[in-house]
Amino acid sequence: MSKSIKLAILGLGTVGTGVINLINDNLDELKRRSGRDIVITEVGTRRQRDDIDATIVQNSDLMATAASDNVDIVIEVIGGTTLAKDVIMHAIKHGKHVVTANKALLAEHGNEIFAFAEAHNVHVAYEAAVAGGIPIIKVMREGLAANKIEWLAGIINGTGNFIMTEMRDKGRPFADVLSEAQALGYAEADPTFDVEGIDAAHKLALLASIAFGIPLQFDKVYCEGITGITLQDVNYAEELGYRIKHLGFAVRREDNGSGDGQGNNGAAGIELRVHPTLIPQNALLANVNGVKNAVLVNSHPLGQTLYCGDGAGAGATASAVMADVMDLVRVLGSKDSNNESTNGHHVPHLAFIPEQLSDTPILRAEQMITGYYLRVHAHDNPGVLADITRILSDAGINIDAILQKPAHKLGQVPVIILTLPVVESQMNLAIEKIEKLDTITDKVVRIRLDELA
Amino acid sequence: MSKSIKLAILGLGTVGTGVINLINDNLDELKRRSGRDIVITEVGTRRQRDDIDATIVQNSDLMATAASDNVDIVIEVIGGTTLAKDVIMHAIKHGKHVVTANKALLAEHGNEIFAFAEAHNVHVAYEAAVAGGIPIIKVMREGLAANKIEWLAGIINGTGNFIMTEMRDKGRPFADVLSEAQALGYAEADPTFDVEGIDAAHKLALLASIAFGIPLQFDKVYCEGITGITLQDVNYAEELGYRIKHLGFAVRREDNGSGDGQGNNGAAGIELRVHPTLIPQNALLANVNGVKNAVLVNSHPLGQTLYCGDGAGAGATASAVMADVMDLVRVLGSKDSNNESTNGHHVPHLAFIPEQLSDTPILRAEQMITGYYLRVHAHDNPGVLADITRILSDAGINIDAILQKPAHKLGQVPVIILTLPVVESQMNLAIEKIEKLDTITDKVVRIRLDELA
Repeated sequence: MSKSIKLAILGLGTVGTGVINLINDNLDELKRRSGRDIVITEVGTRRQRDDIDATIVQNSDLMATAASDNVDIVIEVIGGTTLAKDVIMHAIKHGKHVVTANKALLAEHGNEIFAFAEAHNVHVAYEAAVAGGIPIIKVMREGLAANKIEWLAGIINGTGNFIMTEMRDKGRPFADVLSEAQALGYAEADPTFDVEGIDAAHKLALLASIAFGIPLQFDKVYCEGITGITLQDVNYAEELGYRIKHLGFAVRREDNGSGDGQGNNGAAGIELRVHPTLIPQNALLANVNGVKNAVLVNSHPLGQTLYCGDGAGAGATASAVMADVMDLVRVLGSKDSNNESTNGHHVPHLAFIPEQLSDTPILRAEQMITGYYLRVHAHDNPGVLADITRILSDAGINIDAILQKPAHKLGQVPVIILTLPVVESQMNLAIEKIEKLDTITDKVVRIRLDELA
Repeated sequence: MSKSIKLAILGLGTVGTGVINLINDNLDELKRRSGRDIVITEVGTRRQRDDIDATIVQNSDLMATAASDNVDIVIEVIGGTTLAKDVIMHAIKHGKHVVTANKALLAEHGNEIFAFAEAHNVHVAYEAAVAGGIPIIKVMREGLAANKIEWLAGIINGTGNFIMTEMRDKGRPFADVLSEAQALGYAEADPTFDVEGIDAAHKLALLASIAFGIPLQFDKVYCEGITGITLQDVNYAEELGYRIKHLGFAVRREDNGSGDGQGNNGAAGIELRVHPTLIPQNALLANVNGVKNAVLVNSHPLGQTLYCGDGAGAGATASAVMADVMDLVRVLGSKDSNNESTNGHHVPHLAFIPEQLSDTPILRAEQMITGYYLRVHAHDNPGVLADITRILSDAGINIDAILQKPAHKLGQVPVIILTLPVVESQMNLAIEKIEKLDTITDKVVRIRLDELA
């Protein structure tokens, strides 16, 4: 294992603590994937914390930590656009790479910050700034790098999506759901940024820039929140086959009227807009519920792709922050201690460095654990269900649901049984016994079942 | 613009032609994002083609092209596991980076190929080998690099998903749908690889390796196809709230019986399995239909994320192939002509290199084009609907649907109108006129509408 990568975390709120927890939980994965030791050397925190590992320097002078000789990468998770900006600019000036989750700061000052970073030959990484743990920045900057992006539509504010979901599912009015969201900690005491669409507009400005290659222009995003949405409209929309979601759109309009088809006088340019939108009920995006985020991207020649997951929370944000760190580890790792390029630090072919591949055994079919759907055909006999359930019970197999259908052949009834997860060898034995019953007329049909939970 | 990146394409079938088309269509995007000129210098093709740009060398000796001095990156899209393997090994031996879409080859010989590439300090990139245009390899190797992957479940064979979707939606039996899939070109004349799950097993072997850090072990994947699925089971599953999908699963089992909870004797290890599976109807994965692919990944601390899009076809595959090329351009670009590291070629902060950001105008709200939901409250008067529709028609606004509800206040009816896309300024004028009608009792409520088409 070559030289350690030294991290500073500025801010020890929910996200900063999430990053520390991730590193504690997954240090082995991080090392196996990067081939490097990754250590937190300093944290910038105004209040001394006694639950932090004693080897980590705690510094109340955040500017000093941002410039510390003992730090390679500065992680800014303070939030806000004043101190956060100062520490990031200071870190850049001192040649540190920066990772930030701060969408408001980047949407409003990103052009200046990125130019400053370019001038100092460092990177400012910001995967966590948009859609939380969904790696949408990487997907759009790299995964779709060969495409021409035509438009994107995203659920990029979890609080707003939670409110819209509850209104529809439970028939509860806006104000009522907002209070619950605040009680659950999904919405801030001042929910303006979420319900007026400002948070979504910050994220949309970032997505639009990387989609179309334009400077950040947060001030030009048309922004409409969800405060005016009533249950009446939610219900009429559903009746017509649509669902109301709060979405951010970035759309490229190539030429006059093309998007309209009715001879309207459309102008060429880019639409940046955040607003409630009726979308078809059967679209996947319409079925992204609760606090989940999702981004739908339409590009040429790929077509539509969708990315969905948790848009907020300590774990999701820490995942994105540390993905950025893992990218920067490769940048740092491509130089040895004499600043010579080693050319050795690319993404490993199988994600983990070759000498770290493990010989974890691959289980045989009989060892696998899944739920099952069983279809049993039996003579229409009062004791048959009792016989089957007893065999399953004796094998330690729990039944989740039973569906007994009316006889479809003379005197023969199909019985459908759903089971909880069980080791396949147990299921094999049970099926063997069931098939030996006099009342059973056919082979048992089995299909695996998974709750995806 | 610094030195050109020179590509060779081996094989000019659907995918090879797709790559040429993508480069023709998107050359401007490719240059703006990479800061490099990207040119196809050679193609390896057995039959001379007269529809190829005359500046491109056509070579029927594929081994010669794979080793050509005039090539930086070799794109293998021949398919199969014999000649394809030979040309890839030959290209590696000659220091070329390789991009391939060949899942069968990598699943069966990837351990050997990647080791050979490591030894020769080149990369073999394979985004297109799994789930077509969905950048799932990049997501899992890089975007989720800080997570511990617990399990993944994927719809990774489009033909199989098409068949399962049609069986459920149209109530058609397996054999019938398979014939149609063959007629549409979704399924091969010999559909064994698709319907027996072998193609999915190839992809699952790749996904499992990068999820868990294990060598490729295609031979250990438990593999069950969809040939035994009957309409009867499809329908019973739906009745119980489930849907049958053909899925690949890679699951980490940490300790005995943990996944089962019933004291079953589960062993620690990894489950690699491809089989039809009942999953809950309301899961997003259950609503990924037709030839679409999707991968659901459960990881710690991120939780569940889903990636969905086209898993096959010329455009989707070319998108993934060229995303790999764009990554390799950065590797190649990080050395200047004297093989000194220039440190200048990272992913640009805003995806496009700073000097290539464009000043495309951001449209004002009045210039934006969307569909609309309108809710109009009117006196219950026989002429009112005619008045409203005449105003919309005069403004060139096409109506898509109308819902007139019974009066809910005395003598007042809500009328709901859905419109096709229209420039906002036109809609503003129309609403102004509607609100001036004597029969209208309230402000018009409007919410935007998008078909996401």
